[in-house]
Amino acid sequence: MPAKAKPKKPSRLITAAPSLVEDLVAANLILFDHEILDGFGHVSVRHDKDPTRYVMSRYVAPGIVTKTDIREFTLDSDPVPERGEKHYSERFIHGEIYKARPDIGAVIHSHAPPLIPFGATGSPLRPLYHMSAHVGLGVPLFEIRRFSNEGQMLIRSPQLGRALAGVLADKPMVLMRGHGATIVAPSLSLAVYRAIYAALNAKLQMDAMRLGGEVTYLSPEEVALCVDGVESTNERAWALWKKEALGKRR
Amino acid sequence: MPAKAKPKKPSRLITAAPSLVEDLVAANLILFDHEILDGFGHVSVRHDKDPTRYVMSRYVAPGIVTKTDIREFTLDSDPVPERGEKHYSERFIHGEIYKARPDIGAVIHSHAPPLIPFGATGSPLRPLYHMSAHVGLGVPLFEIRRFSNEGQMLIRSPQLGRALAGVLADKPMVLMRGHGATIVAPSLSLAVYRAIYAALNAKLQMDAMRLGGEVTYLSPEEVALCVDGVESTNERAWALWKKEALGKRR
Amino acid sequence: MPAKAKPKKPSRLITAAPSLVEDLVAANLILFDHEILDGFGHVSVRHDKDPTRYVMSRYVAPGIVTKTDIREFTLDSDPVPERGEKHYSERFIHGEIYKARPDIGAVIHSHAPPLIPFGATGSPLRPLYHMSAHVGLGVPLFEIRRFSNEGQMLIRSPQLGRALAGVLADKPMVLMRGHGATIVAPSLSLAVYRAIYAALNAKLQMDAMRLGGEVTYLSPEEVALCVDGVESTNERAWALWKKEALGKRR
Amino acid sequence: MPAKAKPKKPSRLITAAPSLVEDLVAANLILFDHEILDGFGHVSVRHDKDPTRYVMSRYVAPGIVTKTDIREFTLDSDPVPERGEKHYSERFIHGEIYKARPDIGAVIHSHAPPLIPFGATGSPLRPLYHMSAHVGLGVPLFEIRRFSNEGQMLIRSPQLGRALAGVLADKPMVLMRGHGATIVAPSLSLAVYRAIYAALNAKLQMDAMRLGGEVTYLSPEEVALCVDGVESTNERAWALWKKEALGKRR
Repeated sequence: MPAKAKPKKPSRLITAAPSLVEDLVAANLILFDHEILDGFGHVSVRHDKDPTRYVMSRYVAPGIVTKTDIREFTLDSDPVPERGEKHYSERFIHGEIYKARPDIGAVIHSHAPPLIPFGATGSPLRPLYHMSAHVGLGVPLFEIRRFSNEGQMLIRSPQLGRALAGVLADKPMVLMRGHGATIVAPSLSLAVYRAIYAALNAKLQMDAMRLGGEVTYLSPEEVALCVDGVESTNERAWALWKKEALGKRR
Repeated sequence: MPAKAKPKKPSRLITAAPSLVEDLVAANLILFDHEILDGFGHVSVRHDKDPTRYVMSRYVAPGIVTKTDIREFTLDSDPVPERGEKHYSERFIHGEIYKARPDIGAVIHSHAPPLIPFGATGSPLRPLYHMSAHVGLGVPLFEIRRFSNEGQMLIRSPQLGRALAGVLADKPMVLMRGHGATIVAPSLSLAVYRAIYAALNAKLQMDAMRLGGEVTYLSPEEVALCVDGVESTNERAWALWKKEALGKRR
Repeated sequence: MPAKAKPKKPSRLITAAPSLVEDLVAANLILFDHEILDGFGHVSVRHDKDPTRYVMSRYVAPGIVTKTDIREFTLDSDPVPERGEKHYSERFIHGEIYKARPDIGAVIHSHAPPLIPFGATGSPLRPLYHMSAHVGLGVPLFEIRRFSNEGQMLIRSPQLGRALAGVLADKPMVLMRGHGATIVAPSLSLAVYRAIYAALNAKLQMDAMRLGGEVTYLSPEEVALCVDGVESTNERAWALWKKEALGKRR
Repeated sequence: MPAKAKPKKPSRLITAAPSLVEDLVAANLILFDHEILDGFGHVSVRHDKDPTRYVMSRYVAPGIVTKTDIREFTLDSDPVPERGEKHYSERFIHGEIYKARPDIGAVIHSHAPPLIPFGATGSPLRPLYHMSAHVGLGVPLFEIRRFSNEGQMLIRSPQLGRALAGVLADKPMVLMRGHGATIVAPSLSLAVYRAIYAALNAKLQMDAMRLGGEVTYLSPEEVALCVDGVESTNERAWALWKKEALGKRR
């Protein structure tokens, strides 16, 4: 870490729009409230004015992120500017996905409990109801043992980040065996939506599979139509979640 | 959407009784608190003075509905008056059921999680205990593929609303495969009761089925007697729920 | 209901000790907080100065009971004095058990969800861990069809109350098929303890049975020793629960 | 209990660092918030200046522990000084483990619900994901019947405390059949972490086992690497949990 001059006030160093920063703080709290993130995990958003940067919290638990914790990163996941701070060791998940997927505007790395059993067993996650139709676009499984033979579970290098982005390919999310999942979307609010409803789908799919009988999953046509529709309707949930997260619901 | 004059204050445009509006707001919050509605879903009540209208929130998540969001609709689900606002695209569920069922005073469309696995597998929901006796009146399953071959999952037209009302027939609720359920009752408080206890029945029925052994469901005589009795006892729960929802429990 | 003079202030009519009334209010709220009671169910305590009376709320949901709702009843479950108020229709559960069981000082009638599947399937509830040892004293199942052939599910008569007390016999609780359970104990705080930990035992027993393999339940000696010990240790939990219920934990 | 002079103010009697006392209070509340402790169970920390003592609450439910409840104990589990107060009857769990394990700085005795089914069935708890890697270091099962033939379930003597420490051996936790678990770690924050994520692993392992198919558990190499890494990353969760527990999250 290079010697550095007295740092400017953090807020001066953020070049992203204030509304983007506010939404990112809200996303952290929303995902914490919905048990998608706990003391760990992270959410980022692509910079609104510079697609070669992304915006994310410094090394803080999502449930207590505030505006002053927000930082900017290059797609190589170097903080800009470098202030000698500690950062999430797995931030390469974000940078490498933004590089590989120009269509993506937000990335969530989560240990959401309902997704863990699917990752651990390799049981395919399948779309059970229309709110989770995006699951039907395909949810690949990332087995890190294919890319690292030292027992590494975390994405602590650009190389592993690229491997993860490769398995994700053009899908909306990827399960990570023994670890969690990474969820992506064109917009931050949609990524939050996808993370919440993917976890709920997992929970309900476990319930349905245990009921016995055959589960009717959404057809490709149903998936396509629901995925199209959700972009416009999600504003309704986002407004609620943001009010809740910011403690203003009632 | 036609050009329109400067709108009156919304409250002036509501012709339903203030107590009905207050109860409808409470119902939204109660159903949110009990996880029957989340950011999505909706609850309506038939107009107290005009049975050819129903009352429902405009396009807002149930958890943040307030009095100023309440609107009136014809049974064709056109807002009265037309103010150029956005409305729930599935409001035809409500209008078409009110048309088909003069006995019905309230309708809830829900994605309550415990009901989804039953809809997805077609396992019949059956009444496990006296609080959920209404389940024993019959819970048909609406398979939208029988009525639409384009992959549509939502009830976004009068035609599909009528199809849903047709499958509901004279029952207290209908499961919607891959989507949720719609619950009806003569009164708003009873519809809320039915929605909450149908979801609880679903949860407990899954538990009972997994316990092994045979489940004893309520007999038709037990169902009939319990359904008769609940109308008068539900005032007790409604008083609690309303206080909770309005933040005044203690 | 006889014509009656202008009633005295309720508080004047309560002859039980103020501390008993306070504890009974707390018990209502504690049981609501722990999801043993919801909008329905009730808890009573034997009168501290007159064993031929019991004390219970009037017809109010447990979660909103306050001191002014507390009433006294004879063991025939008649309110004393008669004020023409509505009362729980199942209060005979309480009166008939106090008659049959002079050792009992408190009665809880509950629809606690984890107990319902056991009642519905007849799977025996068995003690899984030391906190729930009282389950090992025996949990009979009350099948109301043996005592009423009209489809009645509720204990709305002295006769059915006596039948329930007969099946309960000398045990700490009785499951009621399709309905719930009734839990008894020498003291109010112990009845609350037993209700909470019986429900937790049910939940964990379902989990253990699904794990496969053999479940080791507590032996009769373990049950006896734990049941003896809990009377003195429960003061610790009661102090916590009461603080929580009265909103004073922190 | 010997006659004793008028006691000093409790705070004067605590020789451990104020920050350790504050963290211990926070640990009690955190573990309560995460349902690792309820009205029962306890958490202790080794004295920062005297390794022959440990620090723990007096006989109070964890959810309401405050600074003034904190006491010091010898490794024989005698309070220092003796003030004639009531103490947890199972405090020997703590003292005997501190004696046997100089590497250990904190001990949690818990009845966390998800662990009970594993203890009761003897199903091995195995590490499902990286957050719970410590489970992969081995989780022995303590069957108290091997050490006591009177039906005793509790660790109410130094002898039983030593037996438990013997079964724990050099592992991070031990399941106690029909009772709960005891979790240890070099530091208090790590013990809290281990307790929370062991319970979550148990829950998820039950889910994964029910999904069918084979569960891929962490390999020994993965366990080793994750266990090494968590010590430094846990500060992030601890900061969150402490803020939450002390009511200062937002």
